[in-house]
Amino acid sequence: MKTTGYAAFSTTTPLAPFVFERRALRPNDVAMEILFCGVCHSDLHTAHNDWGWTTYPIVPGHEIVGRVTEVGPDVTRYKVGDAVAVGCMVDSCMECDQCHNGEEQLCREGNTGTYCGLDRITHEPTQGGYSKHLVVREEFVLRVPDGLDLSRAAPLLCAGITTYSPLRTWNVGPGSRVGVIGLGGLGHMAVKLAVGLGADVTVLSRTTNKEADALALGADRLLVSSDDGAMSQAASGFDLIIDTVPVKHDLNPYMPLLDVDGTLVLVGQVGPLAEPSTVPLILGRRRIAGSPIGGIRETQEMLDLCAKKNILPDCEMIRMDQINEAFERMEHADVRYRFVIDMASLPA
Amino acid sequence: MKTTGYAAFSTTTPLAPFVFERRALRPNDVAMEILFCGVCHSDLHTAHNDWGWTTYPIVPGHEIVGRVTEVGPDVTRYKVGDAVAVGCMVDSCMECDQCHNGEEQLCREGNTGTYCGLDRITHEPTQGGYSKHLVVREEFVLRVPDGLDLSRAAPLLCAGITTYSPLRTWNVGPGSRVGVIGLGGLGHMAVKLAVGLGADVTVLSRTTNKEADALALGADRLLVSSDDGAMSQAASGFDLIIDTVPVKHDLNPYMPLLDVDGTLVLVGQVGPLAEPSTVPLILGRRRIAGSPIGGIRETQEMLDLCAKKNILPDCEMIRMDQINEAFERMEHADVRYRFVIDMASLPA
Repeated sequence: MKTTGYAAFSTTTPLAPFVFERRALRPNDVAMEILFCGVCHSDLHTAHNDWGWTTYPIVPGHEIVGRVTEVGPDVTRYKVGDAVAVGCMVDSCMECDQCHNGEEQLCREGNTGTYCGLDRITHEPTQGGYSKHLVVREEFVLRVPDGLDLSRAAPLLCAGITTYSPLRTWNVGPGSRVGVIGLGGLGHMAVKLAVGLGADVTVLSRTTNKEADALALGADRLLVSSDDGAMSQAASGFDLIIDTVPVKHDLNPYMPLLDVDGTLVLVGQVGPLAEPSTVPLILGRRRIAGSPIGGIRETQEMLDLCAKKNILPDCEMIRMDQINEAFERMEHADVRYRFVIDMASLPA
Repeated sequence: MKTTGYAAFSTTTPLAPFVFERRALRPNDVAMEILFCGVCHSDLHTAHNDWGWTTYPIVPGHEIVGRVTEVGPDVTRYKVGDAVAVGCMVDSCMECDQCHNGEEQLCREGNTGTYCGLDRITHEPTQGGYSKHLVVREEFVLRVPDGLDLSRAAPLLCAGITTYSPLRTWNVGPGSRVGVIGLGGLGHMAVKLAVGLGADVTVLSRTTNKEADALALGADRLLVSSDDGAMSQAASGFDLIIDTVPVKHDLNPYMPLLDVDGTLVLVGQVGPLAEPSTVPLILGRRRIAGSPIGGIRETQEMLDLCAKKNILPDCEMIRMDQINEAFERMEHADVRYRFVIDMASLPA
């Protein structure tokens, strides 16, 4: 089926309209009309080929919410009209230990990215959610639970699950002491989700400027990381710190905040960190980890939790033709906290 | 009581004989004659004040094996003539959660080092095991089990427990895939102890030079870290890597070796690491951690395991007056794998 979208055609040119083909339905495929698509930093990095693996033209977008328009004959879980969602992956081998364990994001063969991946059957490049329609195999389609505002749910599919997954991996629940570094798309979801799981949540920020925002998101407090006295007082006070900072930075000031066996988990920066010291790691048996998105089962669990607890990203709705402006504003962290494209703004 | 030992008197002068006072027995104290004392890199760093916290004169040594010569009236667990051992700490608050949990090394108030610490009652500096006699409170004295060769047991008290503790923290047992980087005092114990716990053990080394040594220690194989093909083949093949390298180095070549949720644990370098990349951390949910020595209970458990399985360090016995030469050889990694001082060589 022909569909329309916005694609990047080179590292330097702005995104522009693009007509392309979605595959004909396979027996286990779900076709959907995309209603909303979140705008993730990865979209921008991919459009600019910052990671060196982009093939053009590329249609970004992996925070996708829509409605089912057609299903293949073998599809059992979805029917036309259902509210559905798709995140960062659209396939995996489904046969390895990780896939069997519901961790398709860690598939031994690598999962298939929603964009910039290669279809496992035709080896054609996958194209993302900045478009009118999408076709995805049933196993990688999420259900948007009743009651979850469709216009705000999209960022849960990447920013949400990327912060929810470490909260679950490190068993955050009532009584857990969670810190969040960086209050952007990921960070604001980390706060809301950690609060939703019953944790005591502290936002770490260099100044007090974001204190009101942090509290409004549900955090219990803001800790000023440039205040040596406050940082000393907070030493050994965290079980988990979610670090969403998307640039190279220094972990050393944060490590003493972790309690024994505590973990600082990186979800933002993809690339080098400043030289860490082993001293706080060794003396306090502290840990540094990374975490990608979660698996499909965990993503559905998160969506269900968000519906139950009314947890939603703070979004700024844009038209499709505002995407280049949105990219520019994102580069200056000028968004609270996630742009969402209203796909109705894209002519068919 | 007066005792004799060898002390460093400044950063630049060699260790030399030193007569000093051991405290009179408190009710819960055990006095011992030291028979053997291992030579740890920390001794050298402390003698040279590499970490900036040395007060002179300092008697190093925290791998101590001896025999009880006297006990205070409240001591219940030891009697004169018992074979005993003392490791890196001689006291802690005994009241915090960590102490209650048997993790005195992580005492909230900080444990009291066997040397370079301050006695918790008199605030006098503690002096280590390069000496004839030692007085330590009962709770920090270990029992050397029958059958463990006293002349080789000393290095278990630091090199042993420093590598045993992470093996236990990360639940190593039969089926665990353990890597060991660096084949010195710590590394060779990591191999022996991991083998003793039933793990599949790989030594990582830049060349094949140490292959015979690695196999002789019980390792299943040596992996040549400069061989890109072999490293690629070994990707995702380890649950735990114990990194004993005692200098600044680059973790990036090793991180892809870890399986999902696998951990590289640092026990050697105390200071900065080269800039790590977050990519293998995030994509594989891998982890970097540090680990100090273990608690008293865990140290006893290790000694008991070593007696049961006849696990002993490979030692080179020296006289007390050879200590400066030994330090020099240690700086060039010229020892297989641990110097042990025969304290009978020290005139009373």
